[in-house]
Amino acid sequence: MEYTSGLVKEKLNLLFNAQSVALVGASNDQTKWGFIVLNNLISGGFQGRIYPVNPGEDKILRLKVYKSIADIPETPDLVVIVVPAPGVRSVVEECISKGIRAGIIITAGFAELGEKGGQLQQEIVDIARNGGMILVGPNCNGIMNPWRKFYVEFPVFYTPPGHIAVIAQSGNVADFVAHQAMLRGFGCSLCVASGNEADLHSEDYLEYLAEDAHTKVILSYIEGLRDGRRFFQIAREVSRKKPIVILKAGKTAAGARAAKSHTASIAGSDNVFDAVCKQSGVIRAKSLDEMVNIGIAFLRQPLPRGRRVGIVTAGGGWGVIAADACVEQGLELVSLPNEIINKLDTLLPPWWNRGNPVDLVAGSSPDAIFKAIEVLLSYPSVDAVMMLSIMPVLGMKRLSAFVDETTKENWGNEMVQAVVNAMEHFNRLADNHQKPVIVASEHMFADAIQETRISYNLGQHSTVCYHMPHQAAAALAGLASYGEYLRRDETI
Amino acid sequence: MEYTSGLVKEKLNLLFNAQSVALVGASNDQTKWGFIVLNNLISGGFQGRIYPVNPGEDKILRLKVYKSIADIPETPDLVVIVVPAPGVRSVVEECISKGIRAGIIITAGFAELGEKGGQLQQEIVDIARNGGMILVGPNCNGIMNPWRKFYVEFPVFYTPPGHIAVIAQSGNVADFVAHQAMLRGFGCSLCVASGNEADLHSEDYLEYLAEDAHTKVILSYIEGLRDGRRFFQIAREVSRKKPIVILKAGKTAAGARAAKSHTASIAGSDNVFDAVCKQSGVIRAKSLDEMVNIGIAFLRQPLPRGRRVGIVTAGGGWGVIAADACVEQGLELVSLPNEIINKLDTLLPPWWNRGNPVDLVAGSSPDAIFKAIEVLLSYPSVDAVMMLSIMPVLGMKRLSAFVDETTKENWGNEMVQAVVNAMEHFNRLADNHQKPVIVASEHMFADAIQETRISYNLGQHSTVCYHMPHQAAAALAGLASYGEYLRRDETI
Repeated sequence: MEYTSGLVKEKLNLLFNAQSVALVGASNDQTKWGFIVLNNLISGGFQGRIYPVNPGEDKILRLKVYKSIADIPETPDLVVIVVPAPGVRSVVEECISKGIRAGIIITAGFAELGEKGGQLQQEIVDIARNGGMILVGPNCNGIMNPWRKFYVEFPVFYTPPGHIAVIAQSGNVADFVAHQAMLRGFGCSLCVASGNEADLHSEDYLEYLAEDAHTKVILSYIEGLRDGRRFFQIAREVSRKKPIVILKAGKTAAGARAAKSHTASIAGSDNVFDAVCKQSGVIRAKSLDEMVNIGIAFLRQPLPRGRRVGIVTAGGGWGVIAADACVEQGLELVSLPNEIINKLDTLLPPWWNRGNPVDLVAGSSPDAIFKAIEVLLSYPSVDAVMMLSIMPVLGMKRLSAFVDETTKENWGNEMVQAVVNAMEHFNRLADNHQKPVIVASEHMFADAIQETRISYNLGQHSTVCYHMPHQAAAALAGLASYGEYLRRDETI
Repeated sequence: MEYTSGLVKEKLNLLFNAQSVALVGASNDQTKWGFIVLNNLISGGFQGRIYPVNPGEDKILRLKVYKSIADIPETPDLVVIVVPAPGVRSVVEECISKGIRAGIIITAGFAELGEKGGQLQQEIVDIARNGGMILVGPNCNGIMNPWRKFYVEFPVFYTPPGHIAVIAQSGNVADFVAHQAMLRGFGCSLCVASGNEADLHSEDYLEYLAEDAHTKVILSYIEGLRDGRRFFQIAREVSRKKPIVILKAGKTAAGARAAKSHTASIAGSDNVFDAVCKQSGVIRAKSLDEMVNIGIAFLRQPLPRGRRVGIVTAGGGWGVIAADACVEQGLELVSLPNEIINKLDTLLPPWWNRGNPVDLVAGSSPDAIFKAIEVLLSYPSVDAVMMLSIMPVLGMKRLSAFVDETTKENWGNEMVQAVVNAMEHFNRLADNHQKPVIVASEHMFADAIQETRISYNLGQHSTVCYHMPHQAAAALAGLASYGEYLRRDETI
């Protein structure tokens, strides 16, 4: 059985934008999910109505507790179920009697345990579908809609509203991504830990997110697809509207076995998955951080028209590493024509290397560096610029060894602001030329706290200065692949 | 020409442990190397004698300036040369007349610019060698010996003393590694940016570091080897004493071209390099951060006797990702025998997955988790344990939504300490069983500052909680490869 688009949208709206939520299995025991989820819902600032259900309790976290679902004085938009597995079936039946149309089963102990659990899971899904109720999970750890301060989930943090959507067949991957986004100053639009995907599949969420106004990029963690054909049919459509970046696990035999016991997923052939991703415009990441790093590039960067990169570097070694990384990512280093070299000759010191990467060496002013980047951007055969090591564009002089600690600290703080300013300058160049300017840099002047602040401040501007050249190359390759997919569509 | 071991040791001692340093080309202009290097030398706290040389200045940074090298009232142990390229040759001649036996040529503009620069560079080397003087560089950005507060270098930070040595054919790679080590609470023993390696090669430093008491692991960035045979002969010997982790750049044609124009390096065949690394016990990293992540694993972890890993995870998705990462790194997931499963049955909730990764699911106490890890460690067919997601071993209850901000902040700070305590517990298990226990975890409770503090505090204990499973797998594979090299030696 599949959901039609209209149904999905309507019911997923109930899920993500619920005005009222019942929590079945609510608890006063701080170690239990029934406490944790309720606590997070309250701590996160949810403004809707909350109905804890537990026949053995009167009050939990200052809220009145209902003995049963039937006792709740309205039909809640959403039910969250955390009772042990053997009790889930009858809870779902009670929900349907009550008219509830959306549920999250957090409880584990179903298909991931084998055949018997799988049967129970299927029975529950059949009951729900017959009763017109959609289900997230089971064996998941919830959802977040930060725009509504709606955190029905396990972790102890509340990612602010933003534009990154996360669908993960793993709670801790969803949490990792949402937490990383938060630490780096970004926010999320919606996050779903989809668990065993007994009823709703990753592609149902994809379809919903295609229409979600806040979502600009979708990050998806996949262990296995329940219906690969349908997933990629939908992904192909969604990709036309928004980029999808996937981390696929279970690539190896050991990983596939682990996926089966984790979320009852069948990992499938990795080569096939790879090929179908390409056909569907889906960008594939190789690691957790690469998924995030590629994803955030889409928030601010224009798409390149091709794969030809000009690198400008203030550090020779980074230039070499970046050249390798670009080629390994399927990007191409432009061979600079005389026309560009002559223009750069007027900007850079006479001993510059006259090649790509453009190695700035010492003696280049910030203004000359920005202009050099513009020279590259204005050249039709350069699709994108990668800038490495931004100290020289910050335009700040060294402090003498004899200044006091306060002066040093202020200087460091000015540097933090100078990085943000420089990144905004790069972003303006990218906007003006409608070509990506991807930046990677260490921040040699910064202590650990200042480095953290730089990253956070940039995220607040929806931008990122990557930490290392290979991250910048992966992000740029992601932008290029997505651009190719959209152009391929245009010409059909 | 090659250096014999004794000569290298004696002269490199002069270099790294200089009691007196001349800086030729010292300057009052804060944008020039002649200011920057002198300023760093002073700021870093060097206790030796410093002789700035510049015919046009009287005082720089409160120090008396000498008109020429001849005017210096003693023979300095080391000379640092920052004058423009055309003037370097005569400076080296003056140094030899003065009896100086070690020099660093920071100046660029030699072999990396082509044939003419290469000739000038060779002439200078010939003069130095005939005069009994060793040279670092040219086209480099200096050295650090943090144990002596000796920072003859470009960046504006002073990595504290520690046990990581860095040899890099790139100043900004050397700086990146030293800065990263510092931000993460580690320190360095010695750092060299070796530049064009006209005289001293990477292998000369390797040989020296083999005997350096502070150095426990050597990280080396290579663009190309001047004498590959000699490098690997020495590396093979050094590897018997200390692990060497290499990041090799110039793998692609574009990277190789960039390496040539950066440090005049010939990158050579990557496959050959790879094979010879394996023969020589050298561990090869794939990226800057992987080099650091593998390196720091050696500071605290015992070496595994093989590649068989038991994974314990509090997050199912991370278990799947880690299983993939281990296999991709050439590690093997142990198939758990009944004996272990029966023991784990007594410790874990009945619904645990009875496989590897051991998925802790909910309901496992910290004590049970530590014991489960010990069960794995005590089994002869498990060579190492990887622990993922450590929240459940921290043993801290959730706070109610209604506590005040101060209580929340204190709770977060207690969590930071709890992570450090848990990591020390893991390290004790590793020590007791003489098998590595490698940990990767997010810290969901932590804000960006607390996360930074966790990382720093752990580094201060010479330990690391990796951020992601693939980093832990790379580190463990590095330990395993090195263990294999040492055992191969044993059996010869």
